[in-house]
Amino acid sequence: MIPSHADPGLAELLDSLPADRVITDPDRMAGYRWDRARAPEVGTPLAVVRATSTEDVQAAVRFAARHAIPVVPRGAGSGLSGGSSAVDGCLVVSTERMCDIEVDPVTRTLVTGPGALNAQVKAAAAAHGLWYPPDPSSYEFCSIGGNVATNAGGLCCVKYGVTTDYVLGLTVVLADGTAVELGGPRLKDVAGLSLTKLFVGSEGTLGIVTRIVLRLIPAQRIPSTLVATFAALDAAAEAVLAITRRMRPSMLEFMDKVSINAVEDVTRMGLDRGAEAMLVIQTDEPAGHAAVEIADMSRLCEEHGATEVFSTDEAETGEMFVTARRMAIPAVEQKGSLLLEDVGVPLPRLGALVRGIEEISRARDIVVAVIAHAGDGNTHPLVVFDPTDPGQTARAQAAYGEIMDLAIALDGTITGEHGVGRLKKPWLGSYLGDDALALNHRVKQALDPQGILNPGAVF
Amino acid sequence: MIPSHADPGLAELLDSLPADRVITDPDRMAGYRWDRARAPEVGTPLAVVRATSTEDVQAAVRFAARHAIPVVPRGAGSGLSGGSSAVDGCLVVSTERMCDIEVDPVTRTLVTGPGALNAQVKAAAAAHGLWYPPDPSSYEFCSIGGNVATNAGGLCCVKYGVTTDYVLGLTVVLADGTAVELGGPRLKDVAGLSLTKLFVGSEGTLGIVTRIVLRLIPAQRIPSTLVATFAALDAAAEAVLAITRRMRPSMLEFMDKVSINAVEDVTRMGLDRGAEAMLVIQTDEPAGHAAVEIADMSRLCEEHGATEVFSTDEAETGEMFVTARRMAIPAVEQKGSLLLEDVGVPLPRLGALVRGIEEISRARDIVVAVIAHAGDGNTHPLVVFDPTDPGQTARAQAAYGEIMDLAIALDGTITGEHGVGRLKKPWLGSYLGDDALALNHRVKQALDPQGILNPGAVF
Ligand SMILES: Cc1cc2nc3c(=O)[nH]c(=O)nc-3n(C[C@H](O)[C@H](O)[C@H](O)COP(=O)(O)OP(=O)(O)OC[C@H]3O[C@@H](n4cnc5c(N)ncnc54)[C@H](O)[C@@H]3O)c2cc1C
Ligand SMILES: Cc1cc2nc3c(=O)[nH]c(=O)nc-3n(C[C@H](O)[C@H](O)[C@H](O)COP(=O)(O)OP(=O)(O)OC[C@H]3O[C@@H](n4cnc5c(N)ncnc54)[C@H](O)[C@@H]3O)c2cc1C
Repeated sequence: MIPSHADPGLAELLDSLPADRVITDPDRMAGYRWDRARAPEVGTPLAVVRATSTEDVQAAVRFAARHAIPVVPRGAGSGLSGGSSAVDGCLVVSTERMCDIEVDPVTRTLVTGPGALNAQVKAAAAAHGLWYPPDPSSYEFCSIGGNVATNAGGLCCVKYGVTTDYVLGLTVVLADGTAVELGGPRLKDVAGLSLTKLFVGSEGTLGIVTRIVLRLIPAQRIPSTLVATFAALDAAAEAVLAITRRMRPSMLEFMDKVSINAVEDVTRMGLDRGAEAMLVIQTDEPAGHAAVEIADMSRLCEEHGATEVFSTDEAETGEMFVTARRMAIPAVEQKGSLLLEDVGVPLPRLGALVRGIEEISRARDIVVAVIAHAGDGNTHPLVVFDPTDPGQTARAQAAYGEIMDLAIALDGTITGEHGVGRLKKPWLGSYLGDDALALNHRVKQALDPQGILNPGAVF
Repeated sequence: MIPSHADPGLAELLDSLPADRVITDPDRMAGYRWDRARAPEVGTPLAVVRATSTEDVQAAVRFAARHAIPVVPRGAGSGLSGGSSAVDGCLVVSTERMCDIEVDPVTRTLVTGPGALNAQVKAAAAAHGLWYPPDPSSYEFCSIGGNVATNAGGLCCVKYGVTTDYVLGLTVVLADGTAVELGGPRLKDVAGLSLTKLFVGSEGTLGIVTRIVLRLIPAQRIPSTLVATFAALDAAAEAVLAITRRMRPSMLEFMDKVSINAVEDVTRMGLDRGAEAMLVIQTDEPAGHAAVEIADMSRLCEEHGATEVFSTDEAETGEMFVTARRMAIPAVEQKGSLLLEDVGVPLPRLGALVRGIEEISRARDIVVAVIAHAGDGNTHPLVVFDPTDPGQTARAQAAYGEIMDLAIALDGTITGEHGVGRLKKPWLGSYLGDDALALNHRVKQALDPQGILNPGAVF
């Protein structure tokens, strides 16, 4: 349904952009309606604009602003919170064609279009012996613009930080179609407010990112890997704390029994199906020191009751376990539909969170798999359900909310890296509190007074 | 002069706060009028509020809001851009009494009042074997709240980032006296807009920071130090590029001939007075690897024409050279009054910037010493002049502006870490451009519609 106050006729849009930029065919538009949360209640766009430049995005936004039409910015649609799912009568602005990448090895920076995949950005940097660290598990199929818009995390964040730590500059198309350049290839810059940082993580609600300047660092050393299994969840959580107090692993991931088994079902790689928890840990310190850290971490895991500890400094063997961890979401997805959580807590509460989730799972009689970027206190409970079973669906939805309530009660956040999107919006107020929520609204109102940018997401 | 629309009588302020919080005696207030830029044109406050709590700050801001009185937030007054200098009829809100620090070694976070000195924060962390990296040269006499408000940098930023990279949460008193909590002790959190980051670097123009949650990391290893001297500026700049392309030193500092000589005048430590440039470089990699890096960096310096290269893995000897670098500002200050610059450029332009500054110095017949956080492309040209000589003062002021114009022409920033404050405001527009400037104003307007927070600074 197209909002009644906006019946512009597509003619005007088609006039303002070359024909190949605009899709209005419902079949072709279908591919742009959902993100990976696959929430059932998505809308039908008026049109999809496949922009090729900042100017294309400006033309689309100006058209939308004139007619007060909602604009949904879309990267690769891999989001897990419904942030890029279509609303009725909107323009979807897709960045998939804006994927030029240029590396400047001397400045150690990279300039990219928002549509380039995270993996393409990493590869372009690697071609110059450089590294773009942030590595969401979806790195092969998420866009760097989506990463910026959600301030995406990943596995190496525990040592190397999240997307915002690498964004030096942005070009952003604002709600009135103005394109503004913020920051640039300067490693330090405090002239004016920190607006670059404000746009990172704004989930398409303040502007559309059309160009990104990223900071790179020298290539990572080949990491050594440690895998430890535990017979109790608490033991694994305590081992995490013991490690992070003393050193900085370059990865510290957690899988519970359900996810271990789901991955084992797919890979048959010999994971311990009886373990309650598994940690996958890496260090990328120089060789001699890495060996010392691996030994220390092994000892700490054993002291905290690990049933088995395995380590390797061979890249391929290590990568096998990391891949196993990255496969957890798709593997669990084979068991049913998922409601994907992203709750995070202060590190000492990790054990309480994981235990609480187990209780919710039991009380609601619903399977919940838990994987976590444990070193950051950021967990992904995956609530599994059969959508054809209304009772189970209702219990899954109840559990989904209760897990967020639990996180809030533990002084945690409802989203550590995926974003609020449309699915977590009902919990945002109780997490932020009235005053912080009002402040969010004030900034949104100042930058998008008509409320056309990604309406329904976050706000 | 007190603005005519606001003649509240101090009685109301004194009523709303305990007596020991408010200073109105002109002699005692004098200590709160200037920052370290010591700009001559500072105003006379109505009163100074020495807050002890968030509630005190709220009471002061509410009073100011009712009467539309300017509020100047003040940390330790070590700023170099006039950001905390008083304006006529303002309330100075000093945080110097808000300096409680609590460390949570398990979460690896620290909660502090804004008035604690950077050195005190570092010491509190160190007592638990932890480290708060950001280290402005002023660390012994600047407040952590001032660091947050300016997004302060320092020497180890080249590897460890700047203040914003360590700020997890803030309590901020807004322009209407509301206290809002943003973020907290969660390592990853993307719920809502990135408002914590927006307040970092806002120089007291959006709110007053009353409580800060910082991320800590494990203690730094003892660094090894390399000192290299060069007979030409360009050679030193090229050596910097050669190093940063390949590795991540934990410090990469530059001093030119004028600053080398100024420091040698004070320390008599035997620096090479004939050198055109000196680099002080550190690596904090584990011992074996540090030795490899020091050797590589020595070779790179020599390949780029270093006249002398000296290295040590002894902490005290290394620290001697770092102290020499930190002393540069006070040492040059002994030669005359200073106009302190903070211009930064993309790294490959470092040589062009330093050469351009030399030309300005010659053309204006005015001494300019240059020190730099070279690995970040962030330089501090120090324009030296005799304030009793009107001709020289005028030439110094002209040079000060020309150096910022030069930085802008080289795609650089007018301020890398000190902030815009009052002194660099005239150049902000030509640096940011109209659209980005307008966006800054829009956010300011939304958060401080009366314009009472630090008026005259930045905006
Ligand atoms: C199997 C799997 C594993 C995942 N693992 C991780 C992980 O480890 N860490 C993590 O952080 N995320 C993870 N994700 C979530 C997702 O991949 C990230 O959120 C990613 O950043 C989304 O990028 P995208 O290009 O797909 O964005 P989309 O889904 O297209 O959009 C996401 C949000 O960003 C906005 N947006 C997109 N592009 C722009 C732009 N150019 N300008 C303004 N707004 C824009 C959209 O409006 C929407 O609000 C995972 C997802 C899957 C399916
Ligand atoms: C010798 C010397 C060396 C220096 N070296 C460095 C360096 O290496 N790197 C660097 O970054 N800086 C450096 N500085 C500059 C200065 O020390 C920093 O800017 C420091 O962060 C200022 O802290 P302060 O507490 O003194 O702040 P102030 O000077 O009191 O205030 C600075 C700004 O912050 C605002 N402010 C202060 N506290 C608050 C608060 N609680 N809430 C809101 N706003 C607030 C003020 O209004 C003002 O705009 C140096 C200064 C000197 C004198």
